[in-house]
Amino acid sequence: MTVETRELKFSTKGEVQLIDITGKVAAELEKCSITNGIVNIHVPGATGAITTIEYEPGLLADFPDALERLFPKGLVYEHHLRWHDGNGHSHVRASMLGPSLTVPFNDKNMLLGKWQQVIFCELDARPRDRTVILQIIGD
Amino acid sequence: MTVETRELKFSTKGEVQLIDITGKVAAELEKCSITNGIVNIHVPGATGAITTIEYEPGLLADFPDALERLFPKGLVYEHHLRWHDGNGHSHVRASMLGPSLTVPFNDKNMLLGKWQQVIFCELDARPRDRTVILQIIGD
Amino acid sequence: MTVETRELKFSTKGEVQLIDITGKVAAELEKCSITNGIVNIHVPGATGAITTIEYEPGLLADFPDALERLFPKGLVYEHHLRWHDGNGHSHVRASMLGPSLTVPFNDKNMLLGKWQQVIFCELDARPRDRTVILQIIGD
Repeated sequence: MTVETRELKFSTKGEVQLIDITGKVAAELEKCSITNGIVNIHVPGATGAITTIEYEPGLLADFPDALERLFPKGLVYEHHLRWHDGNGHSHVRASMLGPSLTVPFNDKNMLLGKWQQVIFCELDARPRDRTVILQIIGD
Repeated sequence: MTVETRELKFSTKGEVQLIDITGKVAAELEKCSITNGIVNIHVPGATGAITTIEYEPGLLADFPDALERLFPKGLVYEHHLRWHDGNGHSHVRASMLGPSLTVPFNDKNMLLGKWQQVIFCELDARPRDRTVILQIIGD
Repeated sequence: MTVETRELKFSTKGEVQLIDITGKVAAELEKCSITNGIVNIHVPGATGAITTIEYEPGLLADFPDALERLFPKGLVYEHHLRWHDGNGHSHVRASMLGPSLTVPFNDKNMLLGKWQQVIFCELDARPRDRTVILQIIGD
């Protein structure tokens, strides 16, 4: 049993961008020394989130639509009144979705459904350079 | 320290069905060789979710009511327009709730509150045969 | 590789109170025998939640505002009709947010963003004495 840390690095365009990182996570699992275990996929930052989705064009519209309906960009946010960075809604969305996801894997394959991808959700109002941490634990 | 994988298999009736899987998870922990650690409870699939709730009839109505209020089945979803499977809302709900939960356990007992059960949330519009993965890590 | 369990204990004022527990978690990591791994931060109880946020006064208003907008205290909850404890909304909010968060750490430091803190969300309608479990796994 051991721990290995890997990082994914990529640039984003700003909200709401859903990026399929399944292949990148899978590639790191392939390269690491661990065969069976869990991978904790974690965003260090308060305006990004990780979840899963069927990565197809319909849901790539529906999921951001739901975020806008529930946490409208146009509301008055106290965060914005203090910091004037126009991303109060981004923070609230990120806290609701959560900054991480832990996925099991065996024989180096994540145990995902056939139509289930791991996504990074760029919720910030502006383009960002992102790092996602993969903390891999297992045998 | 080791890793063990277990599976729960069951059939569901379709949305929204909240199934108390606490006893089934506990039974697998009892049978496995690990005494202290964490269990990652994970749905391979994009229309199910795992969370905890006080499993009593009131909340079994209130929680689905909240899902319907926030992510109405009757909205137009792009997913449905493309795939005609009537479950766009199911996917959006699942991505928001998340496909997994990680629970600590000691002496083979999950460290849950007295009134806190682990639930599988069937969010899909139709009955499904479900597998839930338990990735158990510890000593 | 080993497992260590720690507990945080504190009292809350009742809803909605967001408590920054980052320093307390960091102090327990400092004291434990594990250097690299993950910490599963878990609330045993159905009316609390764990997530991350930029802990500043604006968002400390915005996040509770969003919870009230989406899950209003004033709705009729079946939970309340049965148990008369006035916290149906608390339970629904907690199930949506989730009772736990798993955070990676290396060299005993959680890999959080500079403006990202771990918070306990007191969602219950009344003051509570809370225990938060830290299940720490790693080398």
